[in-house]
Amino acid sequence: MYTDSWNDTIIALATPQGVGAIGVIRLSGSKAIEIVNTLFVKKDLSKQASHTLHVGILKDMDAVIDEVVVSLFISPHSYTGENVVEISCHGSAFIQQKIIDACIEKGARLAKPGEFTQRAFLNGKLDLTQAEAVADLIASNTEASRKTALQNMRGGFSGVLKNLREQLLKFSALIELELDFSQEDVEFADRTQFYELITSAEQITRNLLQSFKLGNVIRNGVQVAIIGKPNAGKSTLLNTLLNENRAIVSDIAGTTRDTIEEVINIEGILFRLIDTAGIRTSDNEIESIGVEKSLEKMRNADIVIYMFDCAHETKENLLHEQEQLTSACKNHLLIGNKLDLMNADDIIKKFDGLDILFISAKEHTHVNLLKKRLVEEVVTGNIETENVVVTNARHYEALQKINDALIDIRKGMDNKIPGDLIALDIRRCLHYLGEITGLITNEDQLDYIFSKFCIGK
Amino acid sequence: MYTDSWNDTIIALATPQGVGAIGVIRLSGSKAIEIVNTLFVKKDLSKQASHTLHVGILKDMDAVIDEVVVSLFISPHSYTGENVVEISCHGSAFIQQKIIDACIEKGARLAKPGEFTQRAFLNGKLDLTQAEAVADLIASNTEASRKTALQNMRGGFSGVLKNLREQLLKFSALIELELDFSQEDVEFADRTQFYELITSAEQITRNLLQSFKLGNVIRNGVQVAIIGKPNAGKSTLLNTLLNENRAIVSDIAGTTRDTIEEVINIEGILFRLIDTAGIRTSDNEIESIGVEKSLEKMRNADIVIYMFDCAHETKENLLHEQEQLTSACKNHLLIGNKLDLMNADDIIKKFDGLDILFISAKEHTHVNLLKKRLVEEVVTGNIETENVVVTNARHYEALQKINDALIDIRKGMDNKIPGDLIALDIRRCLHYLGEITGLITNEDQLDYIFSKFCIGK
Repeated sequence: MYTDSWNDTIIALATPQGVGAIGVIRLSGSKAIEIVNTLFVKKDLSKQASHTLHVGILKDMDAVIDEVVVSLFISPHSYTGENVVEISCHGSAFIQQKIIDACIEKGARLAKPGEFTQRAFLNGKLDLTQAEAVADLIASNTEASRKTALQNMRGGFSGVLKNLREQLLKFSALIELELDFSQEDVEFADRTQFYELITSAEQITRNLLQSFKLGNVIRNGVQVAIIGKPNAGKSTLLNTLLNENRAIVSDIAGTTRDTIEEVINIEGILFRLIDTAGIRTSDNEIESIGVEKSLEKMRNADIVIYMFDCAHETKENLLHEQEQLTSACKNHLLIGNKLDLMNADDIIKKFDGLDILFISAKEHTHVNLLKKRLVEEVVTGNIETENVVVTNARHYEALQKINDALIDIRKGMDNKIPGDLIALDIRRCLHYLGEITGLITNEDQLDYIFSKFCIGK
Repeated sequence: MYTDSWNDTIIALATPQGVGAIGVIRLSGSKAIEIVNTLFVKKDLSKQASHTLHVGILKDMDAVIDEVVVSLFISPHSYTGENVVEISCHGSAFIQQKIIDACIEKGARLAKPGEFTQRAFLNGKLDLTQAEAVADLIASNTEASRKTALQNMRGGFSGVLKNLREQLLKFSALIELELDFSQEDVEFADRTQFYELITSAEQITRNLLQSFKLGNVIRNGVQVAIIGKPNAGKSTLLNTLLNENRAIVSDIAGTTRDTIEEVINIEGILFRLIDTAGIRTSDNEIESIGVEKSLEKMRNADIVIYMFDCAHETKENLLHEQEQLTSACKNHLLIGNKLDLMNADDIIKKFDGLDILFISAKEHTHVNLLKKRLVEEVVTGNIETENVVVTNARHYEALQKINDALIDIRKGMDNKIPGDLIALDIRRCLHYLGEITGLITNEDQLDYIFSKFCIGK
């Protein structure tokens, strides 16, 4: 897609569209300085040092376009590795377009989405996981997503992958050494050492794969469906968690019909709470549609909160609900509501032996415990740890293939199959590893990855 | 409003909110560099030269916030005249807020709207007309509005005012010289020279006042109501001018009911075209409401296009319409439509003596002439001229007061009133002049002017 245009100098607005004090236009390429220089009045930009700022006027022919500040980053000391010029101009879309048009007139072309970062990758400034983390960082909207993206952009994930690669290369070296001496039918390399290396690689891969559950949560949030019978207090719980009167609450069973979705940030994780219509058989057509929607939401949720009224629920029914949720493989929490209306001891006796959190949504009792339980459902350990977390589905898929190859290698060793066959599996591992970091790429894949970036990055 | 906080270091996001590759956060004040330095890892910013760029990491305590580029502008060589630091960070609202919070923690405070520019004004970097032009420049959305704002920001208007001020000061000096010798009852200063100076000041003021009509047009656009009987082709004209099918067109009289407003840029001027319901008495209630709306739009318009079907209009009726529009003091154009259906000679004969532009909206005939006529209605001469244009109602009002004072001065001279009374009127002139440029200000006025800016400028 870009093959014929790698030598072009590209340009794009790097700041958001809209009203602001300033806007920044970014150029990258061998002619970036030259192009801006033809428009810039006051000094010769080609004679200025890197990392300097220059106040002046942009003029096209004799007409002044704007007063600007120009930033110079001279190759290779720039984001892309090429010459980069940033023009800080007044925050009018009209002016920004005029400057971009003037630069295009002088030989620049509009950048494609992510093309600046793609050039940084192709020039070896970033590996592919770091480049992908740049987009994640821009999209980050919680503390956890910012932190994970930043860590990956700074090479956290790359570091772990490098470690994994080293284990595999060591292993491969030993295997190949053995192959060289295969005529002599000796087991040159120490088999114990072989197993140690493969165990270490497996461990790294497994940790990364396991982190994806959390990574996905960090990146995309957690769907939480609040289900239960009518009048269990589901909408009250939603309002209490949000600390506002989002859902209409009444004593009339079946008040909620449409599902209501709201986002809440608990300890840096986004939970998407879905308040559903109470599940019951109803003659009312609108309510029936609501019930059907509730069941669908429940099926798609990451966590299901089954909420019930302590006074009206029986232990038998609760066991039945729990069994259904377990057989549907749903992470779920049983929440007994309306604690304020009953004696605590009675309740505990009534539901003895079940893992239930008793709350009063109305009185805010134990709501903080519920929040803690929600976080525990998705995070084992502390989300604030500096562990590397896989957040990207592409990486996860490649890691699964690496994992499969490692299993094959172990099986091969157990069955004492020839070293050259094992070497093939190792090469498979290294291939998928290279796909993650971008050492091995194909153009379509690259285009796909960078097309998801915003223009100007 | 700001009196107790001029020594504060202020901070704001200078780029628009929203998704983009980067965002820029701006700080200004004596502690700007110090504050960013406590967060910046890699080098000591306080030891760096002005107009330099520094790539590094912002860290709060031990936690990395983001990788950033920091721009330094050391006082007095900055926009505000104070120390200014710009932090170019990743374009995530979450990250931007985190950086702003961290800087506030270290002693900065959030800037008020326009506070950066207000500081530039108070530090003598800009006069008030230039500061106001900055806001106009950011809001500019046509070539003409950009050009005018830029020229004013660069001191075009200030220059003319300075010239006016010099005329007045010269005049004042002559008057006062005369006053010193008043005991001796001589007319020391040459009266001819007096009159010349006052004539020159009057001329400058009058030109500026006259330019406001254009200035207002440049800044706010021109309301153009298209009126006429049903089926005259008003909606077809709108579509033709816009080059798209915006309004529903049919042969049925009374197709348009709601007024339709669209903006079109002709030679750098924004025209707000208003297509109205055809004016006729109707039994249909909805159409009647439409007709009432048409009349209202006509009353508020800057220009009225009276459109008629050449075949069905009579010269008598046209004269009647023209009389009504003239008596309502409306700039208007008579446009005869459906030229394509008639013989041109017949038409000219039929409406002989009237200033009519004949077009065919359907066939696009003479539509460019119509555009030209629209521009001519608002611009005398070339809008692309480098003449100074008054675009600001505040300036216009002050100029009117200057004009009134100049008239009083001339009257006083004609009536040979004492020089010390004339000197009072001159002081009045200088006072209003000072109000325009900000030499004379009151705090409320300043607050009002800058409160209309966006935050971060």
